[in-house]
Amino acid sequence: MAPNPITVDTINPKVLECEYAVRGEIVILAQKLQEELKINPKSHPFDEILYCNIGNPQSLGQKPITFFREVLALCSYTVLLDKAETQGLFSPDSIKRASGILAQIPGRATGAYSHSQGIKGLRDTIAAGIEARDGFSADPNDIFLTDGASPAVHMMMQLLIRSKEDGILCPIPQYPLYSASIALHGGTLVPYYLDEATGWGLEVSELKTQLETAKSKGISVRALVVINPGNPTGQVLAEDNQKQIVDFCKNEGLVLLADEVYQENIYVPDKKFHSFKKVARAMGYGEKDITLVSFQSVSKGYHGECGKRGGYMEITGFAPEIREQIYKLASVNLCSNISGQILASLVMSPPKSGDESYESYSAEKDAILSSLVRRAQQLEKALNGLEGVSCNRAEGAMYLFPRVQLPNKAIEAAKAVNTSPDTFYARRLLNATGIVVVPGSGFGQVPGTWHFRCTILPQEDRIPAIISRLTDFHKGFMDEFRG
Amino acid sequence: MAPNPITVDTINPKVLECEYAVRGEIVILAQKLQEELKINPKSHPFDEILYCNIGNPQSLGQKPITFFREVLALCSYTVLLDKAETQGLFSPDSIKRASGILAQIPGRATGAYSHSQGIKGLRDTIAAGIEARDGFSADPNDIFLTDGASPAVHMMMQLLIRSKEDGILCPIPQYPLYSASIALHGGTLVPYYLDEATGWGLEVSELKTQLETAKSKGISVRALVVINPGNPTGQVLAEDNQKQIVDFCKNEGLVLLADEVYQENIYVPDKKFHSFKKVARAMGYGEKDITLVSFQSVSKGYHGECGKRGGYMEITGFAPEIREQIYKLASVNLCSNISGQILASLVMSPPKSGDESYESYSAEKDAILSSLVRRAQQLEKALNGLEGVSCNRAEGAMYLFPRVQLPNKAIEAAKAVNTSPDTFYARRLLNATGIVVVPGSGFGQVPGTWHFRCTILPQEDRIPAIISRLTDFHKGFMDEFRG
Repeated sequence: MAPNPITVDTINPKVLECEYAVRGEIVILAQKLQEELKINPKSHPFDEILYCNIGNPQSLGQKPITFFREVLALCSYTVLLDKAETQGLFSPDSIKRASGILAQIPGRATGAYSHSQGIKGLRDTIAAGIEARDGFSADPNDIFLTDGASPAVHMMMQLLIRSKEDGILCPIPQYPLYSASIALHGGTLVPYYLDEATGWGLEVSELKTQLETAKSKGISVRALVVINPGNPTGQVLAEDNQKQIVDFCKNEGLVLLADEVYQENIYVPDKKFHSFKKVARAMGYGEKDITLVSFQSVSKGYHGECGKRGGYMEITGFAPEIREQIYKLASVNLCSNISGQILASLVMSPPKSGDESYESYSAEKDAILSSLVRRAQQLEKALNGLEGVSCNRAEGAMYLFPRVQLPNKAIEAAKAVNTSPDTFYARRLLNATGIVVVPGSGFGQVPGTWHFRCTILPQEDRIPAIISRLTDFHKGFMDEFRG
Repeated sequence: MAPNPITVDTINPKVLECEYAVRGEIVILAQKLQEELKINPKSHPFDEILYCNIGNPQSLGQKPITFFREVLALCSYTVLLDKAETQGLFSPDSIKRASGILAQIPGRATGAYSHSQGIKGLRDTIAAGIEARDGFSADPNDIFLTDGASPAVHMMMQLLIRSKEDGILCPIPQYPLYSASIALHGGTLVPYYLDEATGWGLEVSELKTQLETAKSKGISVRALVVINPGNPTGQVLAEDNQKQIVDFCKNEGLVLLADEVYQENIYVPDKKFHSFKKVARAMGYGEKDITLVSFQSVSKGYHGECGKRGGYMEITGFAPEIREQIYKLASVNLCSNISGQILASLVMSPPKSGDESYESYSAEKDAILSSLVRRAQQLEKALNGLEGVSCNRAEGAMYLFPRVQLPNKAIEAAKAVNTSPDTFYARRLLNATGIVVVPGSGFGQVPGTWHFRCTILPQEDRIPAIISRLTDFHKGFMDEFRG
């Protein structure tokens, strides 16, 4: 027996504490069922697993945007740019774009480590895209390209959290990357509740109450996380509400960590995306007034390029000596992957009217977004038709987060098998239908309420069957456990 | 003034403590000089900056391996596989390989998040590559694909380090990712010195001494880092030495963290790479006997695909409940980038004799590796010819790590400007020649000795000019400061 065995009692307890339900026990069960189906297609009452647990559009059949992939291929194998046949295979503007990008990379070397913040020319493009979006200037030196948004979130938590006495205000429900990252860095999650009754409204009075409560417990609150559009809740903040949030952060000296990865995913005509930076600048607040980090990702939007692991954070309002520390953290991992960097620049500067690809690009984009609107509406309507289920509309993002009033007998049955009632429901749903959702307890919810998160991402022709399977299951479940 | 300002006094002190000299002050100065040269090409006594600070072959003109890039391009823009023109543009086996890889990806979706350990089919290929290399079985479920090796190292440090009382045995000199990661995770680096006089020999007696010293200070040592081939030191361990190290870890219950990213970079006929897993298995030790993690990267070897951020770790000897925790850590960041995953599989299963690309692939590979041998020898010889400089041969990896006996007057001059003597030397070298090296203090060295790390990566036709600039500078420096 080794003298220093690695056991759950001797590893970092923060690792044990951290939870990430989006790929947690329900998904692990789903993978097991999938293996069983492979061996025996008749082993379960369904013939495939439908992964609605995660915002992963291309895993459910969404096609990538052609222009983006053309440019990536040309940058991967640059020899193509010198061949005549390439003209027939690729759109002229993708060739132009790839050449332009390569010209920005020292030695055209897409296989070299870049500057730790990302290739300067790509950051210029992204800054120009932010300016075009917001109408306020953006500085390429404020941009850090990262392998998706997750490493950027970790970097900020690593910077801000010293100990359990440092708190981060997070919405409940929240995307569990935040709770996981806070746990791994040894801080305290200070919850503020979104109000389900008002469409997951974010009340500044609630922020104030929770901040004061945390302070009274000796917690030094360092930052406020806002996810807009919301995950898992799908709400889109009104501009006036954002102004209040900006003022709150300014007055309390909190870093505003703005998760804006769903900025392209807006599904209702009465809501618009406004970046927090634009809102703050429109209020007249500059670098000295508010410290703000905006996270963006290539994984979401209409493109949904999750596997490329691209993203960036734009940091403003930090002192130069703090920026140096952030740069140092980035440099320890050298740089993010270059394909992801290129894709992040494409997402922030897609084809424009007049470009050869513009029409086909727009058609692909509009088809995806308008289909997502229909899917969101169909699923929301179906969920609201189920006994004891109420579901706010998905104004944005990729999810519905319905509340389920579970019968007492179901709650007791869950207790008997030592699991939470929403996990019990999700597991039964999976076993009966092959549909994978994430229990609300993975995101946080008002105690005594139960929810699940379900993506709106299955292809549109599959939605009726999903609704029918879900409806049948729910009816059977309620019949089984009704008082 | 905000009530909670983010200042160096209020951020995480572990971030402040962490250092990463490979992209530290000398490199930041080099970037500044480069900007100055852009504005005025006559502003310095050289016309370009030569980055010898980092193992980044393609930044210095090394061309990517054609077959690898063909497959990546086809997997990026899969539409190509259905077009007739593609046959004329790509090698037949690259088309076959890309099709095979796509068949292993659910829905052929290279834009989807994969399993958090990486795509199963690619892990199968990598496991087969490890088996072919070692002659011992490898399990795809032991493999975690990561964005380069760095995130894998962080993951293990995060798992193992609970507090300052947990120690990790690291070589001195070491690649500063290790010291940085240990600092960020709040542990203690327990140094063991490599013996410069015996070609950077690794003595188990030194490991034992340092382990006992650490124990006597109340440090619980959890793991041993071995970098083989060495970075920055370039030595290749002898198999007998590796056996002793395996026994040491087994007897002391230490996790063996084997950095094997330079496994393809061997430059001397009398040394061979043996993976620690092969050595352990050949000794008859299985899963129950030793806990071992092997790190591999696509950034090194003959391919040097740093910008792709691909890599993996193979973990063996962990209990199932610890593996679950490692999986959870991986899942919080969802997955590594798919291009990097594909490239990792290619690196572990390149074209074989009989494949259409085999000849051109072999020619590209051999040209790079044989040129690296010549560059290593030329630079080593030149360095050994300088007054007060001694340099061990680079048996492997990508670096030389010469020792410089600096005159007392230079040491005093460094003190006067509040810097270390080796940093003083490196800064003067940069300002005089444009050559960027990393001071030895960034890696650790025996107190009172001074070194620098210089890559062997500039293209071969540039080496004579580099040697001449370096020689002139060194002569001038010694003349200036000689007693």
